[in-house]
Order: sequence, then C-alpha cells, then structure tokens
Amino acid sequence: MFEGAELGRKVSKEDFKAEIPELRTRLLAAQRRARAAGLPVVVVVAGVDGAGKGEVVNRLNAWLDTRGVQVHAFWDATDEECQRPCWWRFWRRLPKRGGIAVLFGAWYGEAMRERLDGKTDDAALDAELARIGNFERMLTEDGALFIKFWFHLPAEEQSRRLKTLAKDPKSRWRMAPDTPVEIGEYPEFLRVAERVIRETDSGQSPWYFIESTDRRYRDLTVGRTLLAAIEERLERDGAEIDHSYSHAPHLPEAESAQVTVLDHVDLARALEKQEYKHRLEHYQDRLRELTWRAYREKRSCVLVFEGWDAGGKGGTIRRLMSAIDARLYRVLPVAAPTDEERAHHYLWRFWRQIPRDGRVTVFDRSWYGRVLVERVEGFASDAEWRRAYQEINEFEQQLVDHGTVLAKFWLHISPEEQLARFKAREETAYKRHKITAEDWRNREKWDTYKAAVNEMVVRTSTEFSEWTLVPANDKRYARVDVIRTVCERLAAALGEDED
Amino acid sequence: MFEGAELGRKVSKEDFKAEIPELRTRLLAAQRRARAAGLPVVVVVAGVDGAGKGEVVNRLNAWLDTRGVQVHAFWDATDEECQRPCWWRFWRRLPKRGGIAVLFGAWYGEAMRERLDGKTDDAALDAELARIGNFERMLTEDGALFIKFWFHLPAEEQSRRLKTLAKDPKSRWRMAPDTPVEIGEYPEFLRVAERVIRETDSGQSPWYFIESTDRRYRDLTVGRTLLAAIEERLERDGAEIDHSYSHAPHLPEAESAQVTVLDHVDLARALEKQEYKHRLEHYQDRLRELTWRAYREKRSCVLVFEGWDAGGKGGTIRRLMSAIDARLYRVLPVAAPTDEERAHHYLWRFWRQIPRDGRVTVFDRSWYGRVLVERVEGFASDAEWRRAYQEINEFEQQLVDHGTVLAKFWLHISPEEQLARFKAREETAYKRHKITAEDWRNREKWDTYKAAVNEMVVRTSTEFSEWTLVPANDKRYARVDVIRTVCERLAAALGEDED
Repeated sequence: MFEGAELGRKVSKEDFKAEIPELRTRLLAAQRRARAAGLPVVVVVAGVDGAGKGEVVNRLNAWLDTRGVQVHAFWDATDEECQRPCWWRFWRRLPKRGGIAVLFGAWYGEAMRERLDGKTDDAALDAELARIGNFERMLTEDGALFIKFWFHLPAEEQSRRLKTLAKDPKSRWRMAPDTPVEIGEYPEFLRVAERVIRETDSGQSPWYFIESTDRRYRDLTVGRTLLAAIEERLERDGAEIDHSYSHAPHLPEAESAQVTVLDHVDLARALEKQEYKHRLEHYQDRLRELTWRAYREKRSCVLVFEGWDAGGKGGTIRRLMSAIDARLYRVLPVAAPTDEERAHHYLWRFWRQIPRDGRVTVFDRSWYGRVLVERVEGFASDAEWRRAYQEINEFEQQLVDHGTVLAKFWLHISPEEQLARFKAREETAYKRHKITAEDWRNREKWDTYKAAVNEMVVRTSTEFSEWTLVPANDKRYARVDVIRTVCERLAAALGEDED
Repeated sequence: MFEGAELGRKVSKEDFKAEIPELRTRLLAAQRRARAAGLPVVVVVAGVDGAGKGEVVNRLNAWLDTRGVQVHAFWDATDEECQRPCWWRFWRRLPKRGGIAVLFGAWYGEAMRERLDGKTDDAALDAELARIGNFERMLTEDGALFIKFWFHLPAEEQSRRLKTLAKDPKSRWRMAPDTPVEIGEYPEFLRVAERVIRETDSGQSPWYFIESTDRRYRDLTVGRTLLAAIEERLERDGAEIDHSYSHAPHLPEAESAQVTVLDHVDLARALEKQEYKHRLEHYQDRLRELTWRAYREKRSCVLVFEGWDAGGKGGTIRRLMSAIDARLYRVLPVAAPTDEERAHHYLWRFWRQIPRDGRVTVFDRSWYGRVLVERVEGFASDAEWRRAYQEINEFEQQLVDHGTVLAKFWLHISPEEQLARFKAREETAYKRHKITAEDWRNREKWDTYKAAVNEMVVRTSTEFSEWTLVPANDKRYARVDVIRTVCERLAAALGEDED
C-alpha cells in the first residue's frame, strides 16, 4: 500500500517557487468561496513520525487565510472530556459551515495507539474503524468535505530522521506530549496503518498518500490536493442526487392495516388520587436516593421526553425534577437552534449538552424532532430524515457505551383527550400561554404524526435504548409510570434490585 | 446583621395555600415577560448550612417554567476550569438575555471557604469582595438583574438541624461534595458572612435576608421577592438614566494641542532586507523554543492585534504563527458576534475563547472594538463604551493574575502609507478581496479614530498590561518588532533573560 509513496518524487527550488503564486491565489479564492458556500472542510493529518506533519500545517496556515482555519491536536483528554462519551471531544472540534478544521491524528490517533499498545485486538480495531466510517459518512452526507492526508517516508529515511529528531533537544518530537512510535515498532505500525487506511478509505472520504522525503514535493502536493478537492466540490454542489428512498412498507388501505404501536398503548390506565400520592412519594424518595448514588458512582443519565402537544410533558418533568437535587440536573427545552448550532450537523447541538458523569440531563423534546416535526413539516429533506434513524441509533449507542443511563418517553394521549386539554388551557389564565395556533394546526395532522411516531419507535427502539410508550390520558398514571421507569433503569445500571 | 432573620416569622398551611395560585400565575407571567424583554436574571443562593437551600430551589423550579431556568453548583472545578483565570467558570454559567440562572454559592462560596480555612486573611477577602462588586456592577450595568438570597437560622435551630442532618444517611448534607461548616465553626462563619454581605450589598445588587426556620415563610418570601424584583425591573425599563459623561479632557483648538500618543511613534523606523531576514529568523527560532517551554510550564499567552486598516496585521500574525507549532495556538478573527454571543455581556465572547494553560491565542481585533469601532460608529452607547475601559482593565488583570502572558499591539501607519496600500491592494488579484468600501469610509474618519485610539492607549496601558505601539510604515520593521516583543514578554514570564 505504501509503495506509491516511496518513488523518490521531488520538486526543485525553482519549480516550487514558480508554482507558488498561482497556488496561493487560488487557495485563498477557494477558501473564500467555501466560506461563502458554507462548506465545512475537515483536514485530517496523519502518518509516520518524522514526516514533518507540523511543518506542512504551518505551511498551510501561511498559504490560507489563517482566520478561517482551526488546528487541533488531541494530546491529553481533559476531565470534562473523559467524563463524556469519547466522541464528545471530536464533536466539539468540528468546523462550522464555511470553516476549515485541521485535525492532527483526529479519531485515528487513539485507535492506532490502542492497537499498537495491545489494548485492543484487530477485531476491536475493525469495530472502531466501522464506527469511524459511520461518523465520517454522517458528516459528509451533511455536507462536510473530508481530506485525509497520510504522510509517508521509506523505512531508511524514517529511521534516519527519527535518530536526528531524537538528538535535537529543540525538536517538537521531544517537546510534544505525543508518544512517538519507537523505531523497532515500525513494521507493526505500518501493518496497523494499512488496516486503518484500507477500512476507512471511502469514495466520500478518501485518504491521500503523500510522499514526504522531499519537503517541497510534500507541501506542494498537499496544497494542490486541498485546492482540487475544494474546487471540485464547489463546482459539483447543487447537482447532488438523493439516493435515499422510503424504507417504510406501503400499506393496504384497509383501516385494520394501519394499526401502529401507539394503538397498543392501553389508554384506560389510571390511578386513584390516594394511590397516586402514595406511589408518587414512594418513587420520588427512591429517585432522590438513586440519583445521589449515581452521582457518587459517576453515572450520567439522559432522559428524553417526546409526546403529543398537551400530553403532559411539562407536569411530568416537574414532578420528576422535584425529586432530584437541583444541583444534579439540567432541563433543556429544545427550541429553535441558535446560529452557531445551525452551522453544524443537527446532532451537534445535542452533543454539546451531554451531561458529565454523575449528572442528569432532561431533554424536553430532543433529536427526535428530526424524524417528527422536521419530517412532517418538511423542515428536513427526505434524505435528511431518512438517514437520521441510523445517526440517532449510533449517537445513543455511544452514550450507552460510555455508561450513560438513557430513557426515552413518548407521552401518548387520544385525540379526544387532547381536544379537552386544549379547551381547558384556553380557559385557565396561567395556562393560556401554553396553547398556540401552531398546536391547533399540528392537531390536524394527527395521522401523519402518528405514522411518523410509529416509524420512529420501530426504528429506534434498540436493545440498548428502548422507547417507553406512556399511557397519559390519566396524568397521574403517566407521572408515576415515568418516575418508576427512571428508577428501574437507574437501579439496574447501579446493580440494585427494584421492586 | 442577622437579627432581622431571627424574629420567628411563620406562615400557616392555610395562608400558604391561599397565596400560592396568584403567586404562581404572576411568577410565570413575569418569567415570560422577562424572556420577551431579554432580561437576564441571576439568583444567588447562599446562607447557613441546614437552612434548606436545595428545597427552596426545587420549589422555585416547580413554580417557574423550568425550561428557562438553569441551576448551577460550583462543587469541583474541572481541569479545563483550573487551567484558566478563576472567573472563567462563572462566565460560562451566566444566563443569556431572557434566561434565569440559579447559582448556589456562586462567587461567594469559594471566597468564604478560603477565608474560613485560613487560606486568606481579611484584607485578601476584602480585595476579592471588591472584585466581586465590580463584576456584579459590570453585569447590572449591562442589564442583568441580581437577586441574592441569604438564608439564615438562629443558632439553636441551626445546631438542631445540623445534628439531624448529620444523622440522616439520605440527606444531601451527607451526599453532596460541599464541605459543610462544622458546628463549632459557626460564630466565625457568621463573622465572615457579615463581612461578605456588608461589602457586596449594593443598591444595584442587594442581599435579601430570608428567615428559614419556617419552610412556608421561607419559600413564600423567596417567591414574592423574586416576583417583585422582576416586576419592578420590567416596569422601570426604558426609563433609565445614563450617568456617565466623557472623562476625556476638552482640548484647545490649536493643532499643537491635539498631539496624541500615536504622534510619538517614530514611523521612520525601517529594516534592510538582509538585516530583516537575519533578525526574523533569529526571533522565530527563539519564539519556537519559548512557546514550547511555556507549554511545558503551563503558561498561557494572549496576543491582541489592533491597528489601522492595511496596517499589516495579517502578515505580521502569519510570521508570528509560522514560528509556533500549529498545535499550540489558535488565531481568532473577531467578526460579527453570533446570536449566542449577542445574548450576553460583550466580554463573554472573549472569555469563552481564553486559552488553556500552555496554549497561545491570537486575537485579530479584540475586545477593544468596544472603544474603537463601536464607539466611533455608534454601535455602543456612550455609557457602554465609557465604562468599557474599566471592564477591560479588570478582565486583563484577571488574565495576568492567572499567569497568562498578555501582549497588545497597535500597528501604526501614516494616512499616506494607508492610501498607498489601499491602491496597491486594488491592483493585486489575490489581495483585492481585502479592501472594501467600508475601509474607504473608515479612512475618512481618521482623526476621530485617532482620538479614540489615544484614549484607549492612555486608559488601558496598565502596569500589568501595556500597549506596544508598533511603527508599521515599514512592514519588515513591524514584524520583527512584534515577534521580538512577544519573545521578551515570554522570556520575562519564564524567568529567562532576553538580549
């Protein structure tokens, strides 16, 4: 695989100088156009030690308008990073639309290091590479441009440079907190590298091999490759074809064929007032205890609330929260995204709110908006909401893999109950603000929403993250049901029995 | 001071119930109006242990629309927080306009704890309290509403409750990582508390004493106080008077009286090409070494660039950066604020970009925009830019107190040199984008800007943070001058001699 980068390619000083002016002019123009077009560019810088990756990036910074370029190394994970799913630290470094992020090692550095140190085997590495592939695909589908450079040196040149670097007390190689690959480790390093490149070299996110023996060849090739990738992409834009199609089966028209998971929810469930008070108090006490225990054991908790308008989310969340110490939780209402949020993949705004270990975050509406309101109202394109199921499942898997306790609730009521509640709200002074014209409009699309909810529940109820469909015609039943479920999940995660 | 909270005030169950419906309705309405008006509300919760601060906040969460309320405790500082000036952790928790933040202890917690532990003496505490006063004043002047609650218990009640709490294995008092005040420590605690309250109880940001023996009295008083504060503030808004006036002396009209600090900059300074190359290389090498050393010794560095349009900021920054490893620095161009940034005090957007220990952040334009372009173009009100000098000085002092190396450069050129550069830019293809109609307009206001620059330099050149006025008619001289200065500052901070 690396033979193509051991050909002895070089560029003379004169040729280098001759190419520079046009390259710089075009690079600056391409960067400006990319900014205007809102194209996010991710440049991954990887390769063998001693190839001069830092030099190349300094060169790019000199050629480009530095003000639009952010460079990130992933040396030490801070404790804020360690206390969240491991992809959080990458999400927070992604470029916004129109920006360029240069990532040293990116998500490849740690995957390779762990394999080399024997902390993982090839199978585990492959699994991680599949996750990486999914991650990059998700971002390219969202419009990002990936340019991944692999800097290579032939074995002798490598070994010569590493010896020189090791001697020079001023070289980065001695200063930076990276763990350099030992010279004897190189064959294994190349074997792992080949596997990594092979598994993640996709048409949408290709690797570029850069022979790095000659610095001028190296830098010029990088500059030209970056330029070509951006220019090609800008030209193609607008001409993209949506390859997605509906994966929902087409149903017969008979009403009996339209049954959804929601129809199986037993809306007759209810609780007497006395029984309600008793149970509510019981589970609130239990929840207080469990959330403190989760705090001590550093387990975070993410609670997602979706449901029909007037389904009782607010009241349920209030009862849930009143059992938890106010210092341990945050409630996040999901409203219109800010402009910083709009400049990223739609999941970015949720990633940035993921709780640290030991804390609880309640999402009052959530990332499921993508496949509910955004789908139904046409705010997301077909391609966007159709791929969202898989993106969401991967996101939630990362939460669960980190140890986060995740629970998702759909508060279900009948259309008749909704109508009654809408009317009641209009009659109570301090509830009137809760009902808007939009609520009435949404109500007219009940069946469309119902189909979307059905598909959402079917596609995103996974072994690691099931939906809880809560019968909520009776508010008392719903509240107790939710708090009890949260207790059960927490208790199970903490290894306690719940009765 | 605390006698007023030991009167035995109480509220019966019936009276409590009777007051609730109206209170809730009005609180919700006030919250909605505050959101619409963009009023940021900061609720500080402090007081003696055992007074039930957590209970009160849970009650507020039940009465208010939780979705607009963020609660924060400041238990453990994360390493991302420790590696920045200590106020960073508070800045990141401030509410945006229209939001309510409930802060347990807030900036008072640590100040009190350190005094009680004997880490500080009364003088150091007073100094910290003065900083707190400035901070709160800055935010109230920016429109924030502060409501600071002090929860008090008489000595016997206190001691009784603490004993009970210490026995109960489920109480927060045992679970949370706060260090509770020991019972024997109480007289000293109250002495320190009195000092803290006295020094920070201003007309704009008053403390409210809340007698906490009776829970119903306590909660009702808190709810009513919060309501009254928000309602009063919303009514008053729009009727505020600007008490600021120009503190710049009024000058005689003779031209000889108009001399500014910029006129003392020797614009004839220049470097020959050979000498330039030699010195540039020398200082770049030195800078490479020093920034790695600063990384190892965990010293951060903030470099601020201001100057005339076409003054050569971009080229200077590029030469500076090419000497520093790309993994150590970030360049931040200061353009229009995002909507999240606009929803906070103008310094918030700079606070969020403060580098971690060991890293370098370059601001290409900066917080000084407040007293330059925003002043001259009228984007900031007179009151806003006039108070900005002091706000900036305090901000920079916090950076320097943390150990950050700070350097500020004004790149100075003559109007004639600017004209020549504007024309040259219009003639070079890859520079044409750098010149806009706005640049020509700004040029017409040269004298107004000059006066603003003069006042900025005079008011913000402090013993801990001096301005460097760089003669930049000769680009070569300017570049070397800047890099040399950065080397000197870094070397001095690291205890090295620079020649």
